[in-house]
Amino acid sequence: MLERRDSLEPSEDALTTLNHKFELAARPAGLPKRSDWKYAEEPVRDVRDGELLVKILYISLDPAMRGWCNETKSYVPPVGIGEVMRAGGLGRVVESKNPAFALGNYVTGLMGVQEYAISDGKGLNKIDPKVAPLPVYLGGLGMTGMTAYFGLLDVGQPKAGETVVISAAAGATGMIAGQIAKIKGCRAVGIAGGAAKCEFIVKELGYDAAIDYKAEDVRKALQQHCPKGIDIYFDNVGGEILDAALSLLARGARVLICGAISQYNNTTPIKGPSNYLSLLVNRATMKGFLVFDYASRYGEAAREMAGWYAAGKLKTREDIAEGFENFPEVFLKLFKGENTGKLMLKVADA
Amino acid sequence: MLERRDSLEPSEDALTTLNHKFELAARPAGLPKRSDWKYAEEPVRDVRDGELLVKILYISLDPAMRGWCNETKSYVPPVGIGEVMRAGGLGRVVESKNPAFALGNYVTGLMGVQEYAISDGKGLNKIDPKVAPLPVYLGGLGMTGMTAYFGLLDVGQPKAGETVVISAAAGATGMIAGQIAKIKGCRAVGIAGGAAKCEFIVKELGYDAAIDYKAEDVRKALQQHCPKGIDIYFDNVGGEILDAALSLLARGARVLICGAISQYNNTTPIKGPSNYLSLLVNRATMKGFLVFDYASRYGEAAREMAGWYAAGKLKTREDIAEGFENFPEVFLKLFKGENTGKLMLKVADA
Repeated sequence: MLERRDSLEPSEDALTTLNHKFELAARPAGLPKRSDWKYAEEPVRDVRDGELLVKILYISLDPAMRGWCNETKSYVPPVGIGEVMRAGGLGRVVESKNPAFALGNYVTGLMGVQEYAISDGKGLNKIDPKVAPLPVYLGGLGMTGMTAYFGLLDVGQPKAGETVVISAAAGATGMIAGQIAKIKGCRAVGIAGGAAKCEFIVKELGYDAAIDYKAEDVRKALQQHCPKGIDIYFDNVGGEILDAALSLLARGARVLICGAISQYNNTTPIKGPSNYLSLLVNRATMKGFLVFDYASRYGEAAREMAGWYAAGKLKTREDIAEGFENFPEVFLKLFKGENTGKLMLKVADA
Repeated sequence: MLERRDSLEPSEDALTTLNHKFELAARPAGLPKRSDWKYAEEPVRDVRDGELLVKILYISLDPAMRGWCNETKSYVPPVGIGEVMRAGGLGRVVESKNPAFALGNYVTGLMGVQEYAISDGKGLNKIDPKVAPLPVYLGGLGMTGMTAYFGLLDVGQPKAGETVVISAAAGATGMIAGQIAKIKGCRAVGIAGGAAKCEFIVKELGYDAAIDYKAEDVRKALQQHCPKGIDIYFDNVGGEILDAALSLLARGARVLICGAISQYNNTTPIKGPSNYLSLLVNRATMKGFLVFDYASRYGEAAREMAGWYAAGKLKTREDIAEGFENFPEVFLKLFKGENTGKLMLKVADA
């Protein structure tokens, strides 16, 4: 068969498979615009000894990606201009010269916003499609699930009977954090935007209470739902909601800084938490964490989470958009609060 | 001798001793004005069984007192309007119907902004004037010393070789914290206002470096003096300096929130730390603490600190103002950065 360089469709059986990808074209100011991305096409190069070729099926869309677009020093280097946008994903091995991976294996890892990825296998995890549907491995049983697990359990150290408040509670990490809080015997109060999300977290996920930040005075509602104060606040949003939670900490509270989605697209300085002195008054701790630091324990966590999942104690929800070329617009759903559950982009059929 | 109600001078040998005191007359907005205080006089009442009468010699002036004037919920109830202003102090027992205290004992404790205090003995500590001069027991060997000790050692957990940055480094708590950091083998970098304070902390106290926040760009100076980043930041000031320190945290850093003197007299909302997401990037912890929580361990700390003091490893400095009636003005020196070392008011001769 001839090369199909004239085609926009990837073809596994072509002599040369075409890869499509989104590169970072410019550092976004505020919400990323389409012109901040470059849609590019190139032939997939030959797979070398030790490497494997993955056909990406789902691309994970995560708030952290916004931070990776900035030039500022962070926990990982910024994505360079002209580089493929960094993203987690799930795919199928379609060629392997690495003995650890066989044709047909499903893998997850940081494979970028593209249709094909060549890897030496480092950082890729094989997953079992019999335990859960594939998309669950990018969410509840994937990185966002791990984030909830290690954040709540390791950093938060919840004790039965404590009150745990979670922002972005219907988001990928929040939905898992609330359920783990319940599994550990805590009271779980979620903050989310809109009646549908609030209903979802209470009726589907088992949160004890939900606060609709778009319709309610968050501080007053927290006061009502947390009569003994907040023992753990799992913050995914920052801004005014963080301040409201800080004002109601219980003594010895733990504030987990997982993210600050309300601030990621600021073109002005980030709003710092005015009520941070509540940490002093309440002898409380505010702690930042990154799931990547727990890599050596992913296996342990995955086994426990899969057990909860199989037992019906841990529910997941995926918000799956379709069409690789829609990446720039779908990504923005995160910042507009338009997703419920784990947002991802379906790129190809399994 | 007749009652001396006509006299403004207290007299121990009078039938009725007169007490003078400052009561909180109004809740201050911003820096407390003289009209926020009421200077009052009353006869000292009879000492009952179990009680003792203390003639106060030195009154401790501490930034925390400003917070106690506010009506907002805090770690202690606010001082009520019309109540004697709360303050630590040091005095001599001049009458005792409490077997635990003898005439002539020197004691420290929360005895208020007044010349005489009647106490049941709870919360008073006897101190030994042979170990150190009396004023040292309100500073380096007193509550501010304890604050530095437990904050740095218990909350901060310093390891030899780490970089410890301290704001208000020439203040009562800061001066001790820096010296304990050195005792523990850390690099100590102090931030203070003015050349004299900077010289004091380096030449007298042994800080490795000093940054004059009135003359230098604090962030640039921190970058220069902390090439490996900040492992522990002991914050007494809040505001812009806290933000500068946050921007230079090392991985796993601990930010100790001891106070926020730059913010205590705000009439606008407190400036929250814009750079708080550095906690996430650097997996760092911001922790508030209160020395009162360590009361059961004061003895242990006092013994160790007294040992350092005797060995010349721990130096103290007191900034002693005179004249009870000058309390309102002397108190403000704290917020104007006019004191070096522990600020106190001398009320009577020992």
